[in-house]
Amino acid sequence: DALTQGQFDTVYNFLSLVIAAQLFTAIFLILALQRVLPRYRQALIIAAVVCGIAAYHYFRIFDSFKEAFVTEAVGGRGEYVQAAGASFNEGYRYVDWLLTVPLLLVELIAVLALAKAVQSALLWKLIPAATLMIVLGYPGEISTDDGTRLLWGVLSTIPFLYILYVLFVELTKSLDRQPPGVRNLISQLRILLLISWLVYPVAYALPLLGISGPDAWVLKQAGYSLADIAAKAVYGLIIYRLAKLKSYADD
Amino acid sequence: DALTQGQFDTVYNFLSLVIAAQLFTAIFLILALQRVLPRYRQALIIAAVVCGIAAYHYFRIFDSFKEAFVTEAVGGRGEYVQAAGASFNEGYRYVDWLLTVPLLLVELIAVLALAKAVQSALLWKLIPAATLMIVLGYPGEISTDDGTRLLWGVLSTIPFLYILYVLFVELTKSLDRQPPGVRNLISQLRILLLISWLVYPVAYALPLLGISGPDAWVLKQAGYSLADIAAKAVYGLIIYRLAKLKSYADD
Ligand SMILES: CC1=C(/C=C/C(C)=C/C=C/C(C)=C/C=O)C(C)(C)CCC1
Ligand SMILES: CC1=C(/C=C/C(C)=C/C=C/C(C)=C/C=O)C(C)(C)CCC1
Repeated sequence: DALTQGQFDTVYNFLSLVIAAQLFTAIFLILALQRVLPRYRQALIIAAVVCGIAAYHYFRIFDSFKEAFVTEAVGGRGEYVQAAGASFNEGYRYVDWLLTVPLLLVELIAVLALAKAVQSALLWKLIPAATLMIVLGYPGEISTDDGTRLLWGVLSTIPFLYILYVLFVELTKSLDRQPPGVRNLISQLRILLLISWLVYPVAYALPLLGISGPDAWVLKQAGYSLADIAAKAVYGLIIYRLAKLKSYADD
Repeated sequence: DALTQGQFDTVYNFLSLVIAAQLFTAIFLILALQRVLPRYRQALIIAAVVCGIAAYHYFRIFDSFKEAFVTEAVGGRGEYVQAAGASFNEGYRYVDWLLTVPLLLVELIAVLALAKAVQSALLWKLIPAATLMIVLGYPGEISTDDGTRLLWGVLSTIPFLYILYVLFVELTKSLDRQPPGVRNLISQLRILLLISWLVYPVAYALPLLGISGPDAWVLKQAGYSLADIAAKAVYGLIIYRLAKLKSYADD
């Protein structure tokens, strides 16, 4: 598939936006570490590491994109076609998720500072489910066959729904002892999580709905980029606010 | 030997996964340094350095891989053949092990905070044995002759077994005075060490068992990648947990 200059530039700029957002959110969180009580720092360190991992992968995705789509047009004002000998590697996203999705869940549980036993019970459910969700989604993502895509997509949705169940039903029971302002912020955080995480399965399902071609592809890259900023950087900043609120409340 | 796009992408994604895992585990451990008592920081610093050394070598291995296997196919959707004038350098792994394997053992002994005399007695056994194991394995690794491979493999296995003996028999005697939760975690750590370290001699022995060809090679790269993540990053994170547990216990 070929891209117009406008489409190429759009993807290019979105990818660069994500690099900047993730890298500097990571740096911000590291610099802000001392502003919260020690018991909340673990959550912020993980948030910073998540944004750092995302920045690393977006550097790679950006380079992969620039190698995979090339033009001969003067001033780059022409069609961008797929290069010989280079592919745009969609696998980076799954490698990224494999590391960051479990960490995003650890980060959420860590900032709540629940009792140790409750924490590890929740994580023993969430982390295996998250890993399973991603590993099951990958074979469908790289397949060109719609039936295969549908099958693995459905399998991957099972642990996804389970994660949402744990976060929205089981976790709710543990929130009674959180101060009211904190409870409010946790609600917002979970809504952000829900909305941004839904982008991924929807993007995955686009080819099944017959939506394809360069426009759809550009839209998917833009959607992933914005979802990644929401699910990691904005999410990390809300975790920071939560940690600050709880630091005041505990003091 | 030629690789399909699927095989090429699999190795590519595994190598990138290891880079991300090692690099950000190193950063995490550095950021988490203040969370443990000063006497346990030495172990965490070494753990961070080990992951950093591994990240460095995997950057190199990744580049070496990308130079050694090339395709002419548009969009990279074709066969990847070995390039003229570039080799995939397996030697990086041995250079990496020469530095990291002794450090992994130092890290383990350091976090236990045993009596100084016991520490240095153990390390005087473990470090020379580890160095010998790697140096003896290398001539077999680069040889194309099965007899040579077998000979050096057997020689290298002697110090390997000695290391396991020291860790599982001699070290056990020094663990009585560790708090119970710590003892539990040390057991898990040694099991992780045993399983992940066994991957290396098994991979070394594959050609002797007649297992070769592209599929076997891809499997070996995937196996090394996962073993390296387990033996350095996950291991380092368990060392961190140990250090935290012991910090609480001492407090
Ligand atoms: C349900 C489902 C999926 C869910 C993916 C999710 C929920 C990814 C979340 C990623 C995040 C949060 C990234 C980091 O910010 C897949 C794998 C696309 C496969 C199809 C079914
Ligand atoms: C016994 C044996 C070997 C053992 C290698 C080991 C045990 C390597 C461990 C590496 C680690 C732990 C790397 C860092 O994470 C060799 C040299 C393959 C040669 C064949 C015999």
